[in-house]
Amino acid sequence: MNEQSNVAGIPVGVVGLGLMGSSIVAALLIAGHPVKAISPITPDAQNAYERIFTQLNYCLEAGLIDSVEKFRSMLHISEDYATLAPCEVVIECVIEKLEIKSEVYKKITSAVSPSCIIGSNTSAIPISDLQTYVANPERFLGIHWAEPAFMTRFLEITCGNQTTATYADRIFSLAHRWGKEPTLLKKDIRGFITNRLMYSVYREIFHQIESGNATREDVDKAFRYDAGSWMTLMGLFRRMDYTGLKDYGTILNNIFPQLSNTETVPPIMQKMVTDAARGVHNDKGLYPYEPGEGKQWDEAFTRFNQEIHQLAANYSEENVKNQLNHTKAKS
Amino acid sequence: MNEQSNVAGIPVGVVGLGLMGSSIVAALLIAGHPVKAISPITPDAQNAYERIFTQLNYCLEAGLIDSVEKFRSMLHISEDYATLAPCEVVIECVIEKLEIKSEVYKKITSAVSPSCIIGSNTSAIPISDLQTYVANPERFLGIHWAEPAFMTRFLEITCGNQTTATYADRIFSLAHRWGKEPTLLKKDIRGFITNRLMYSVYREIFHQIESGNATREDVDKAFRYDAGSWMTLMGLFRRMDYTGLKDYGTILNNIFPQLSNTETVPPIMQKMVTDAARGVHNDKGLYPYEPGEGKQWDEAFTRFNQEIHQLAANYSEENVKNQLNHTKAKS
Repeated sequence: MNEQSNVAGIPVGVVGLGLMGSSIVAALLIAGHPVKAISPITPDAQNAYERIFTQLNYCLEAGLIDSVEKFRSMLHISEDYATLAPCEVVIECVIEKLEIKSEVYKKITSAVSPSCIIGSNTSAIPISDLQTYVANPERFLGIHWAEPAFMTRFLEITCGNQTTATYADRIFSLAHRWGKEPTLLKKDIRGFITNRLMYSVYREIFHQIESGNATREDVDKAFRYDAGSWMTLMGLFRRMDYTGLKDYGTILNNIFPQLSNTETVPPIMQKMVTDAARGVHNDKGLYPYEPGEGKQWDEAFTRFNQEIHQLAANYSEENVKNQLNHTKAKS
Repeated sequence: MNEQSNVAGIPVGVVGLGLMGSSIVAALLIAGHPVKAISPITPDAQNAYERIFTQLNYCLEAGLIDSVEKFRSMLHISEDYATLAPCEVVIECVIEKLEIKSEVYKKITSAVSPSCIIGSNTSAIPISDLQTYVANPERFLGIHWAEPAFMTRFLEITCGNQTTATYADRIFSLAHRWGKEPTLLKKDIRGFITNRLMYSVYREIFHQIESGNATREDVDKAFRYDAGSWMTLMGLFRRMDYTGLKDYGTILNNIFPQLSNTETVPPIMQKMVTDAARGVHNDKGLYPYEPGEGKQWDEAFTRFNQEIHQLAANYSEENVKNQLNHTKAKS
């Protein structure tokens, strides 16, 4: 992470300007990159422009940046893939359909130089499958962001079977200059790391509520108020060190055989899918929602994310080890 | 949760004044209970007294309470179990050995009235096993706290086979007056809820690092910066609603068969146990530690916990739904 040189000269492309793509564009602009953005859906370009500047204005209000004006000349939105030509990195974030992504890759490939690194924000399709559609698969990898991309420190880099490690290292290094704490996954496993961890918990929690042992409210409370009280500071392995490790040999031997090993989607989740429940997006989900309540959760998360982002920064591993004097919580 | 009456008249007993027991005593005093504390290990009583008041002074500095003096007359520490006689609730938090706990239960049983509810802070021994050692097993249950007990909102109430639900409900209700967001587990499953969720993740993360797919540092970063960015706000089911639910049917069917189903303790963890690694407590663990670094983590967690506690309070479910104006993060 010794790369302190300016990223201002490195043009980055973003293809797909939905919610996630817009948020990635904002993150890259804030990091100092000129951004060539492609809106494959014609009428969406103007919306995307407004969405990106709404997000940048939000960052301005939050004190993350001191002006949005300079970004106007750094951002170029087009339907024309040819504008990607100068890009050293292009990030694809179109919808999770192989037939659409493969078409997009053809267009990117024909526009960029052979030295361009192409990344996909996919969380659903294996990188090894996607990279078969580009001209230089050794330069293709997963670059998986978390929403809102300009505010979260998470970024997951995943190598496909044909990816050359050098290019993953290059993105890993760049990511630090994007304000990220990137993770590097050397093998293209389903769900990558972060989703896989969550899915292992989902398997167990559905089993517990379907067995009637606890309610979903209680499971959520346990996670929020126990795991949630240390997770932003520690991570899982650090947490084990913190708890002292002593009894884990016995405990894990006792517990592992009792955990759910189901291989099929839990009935409660299947019902959600069948009923077209979209959670906070249509006020219909695992929890009941009053009309408009979904929007409140969305707003709360936007605010919360800013606060947890700052808290995580104050308690970076470096700060903990240096025993820096953190500002005390206002009481 | 309509119980607004004062708890001042309800004496509560705590048996075992190690770190956890002391912290539970502090929590109960702050909630307004007179506390009868039993220190089964003779020379430890004075240490326990000092430890409890150190914690109360910490709460004073943090602005959680406005004085510690009033607690001196509310706390009574003794080796004599007979002082438990007036208690309506007694919480046992001695070490996790059945032969020691069973002796302690005999002494508690002979001291308290038949109407007393007895709870154990165990996280390792089934409640159904423990309750066979008390005179009124229907009034025995798990009351599992998280450290530091006076600062965390987590509290897990677990019924054993013989527990009568009324008494679990009584503790559930009291727990709200202790400032908790309690969870109620109707069946005595191993690891209860919160540990079980974590063990399901541990199973998967050890599998991933042992397969060489990612490093422990990367797994921890993924958890801290992705899950850690929403967990304190949402819990798992709420998170699924937030993400929109749409693709989970397909994804879970794809992923579940690929998750680790191992039933044995991972070799890396077994080595820790064999090597007597105690993590931050002896600077030897899953991570390397400089001498004294463990203590820095301990101090960081103490500070962090206060901040995350306040953040969680600002974003209670009630606050989200009421769209209260939260104080904006100081930028």
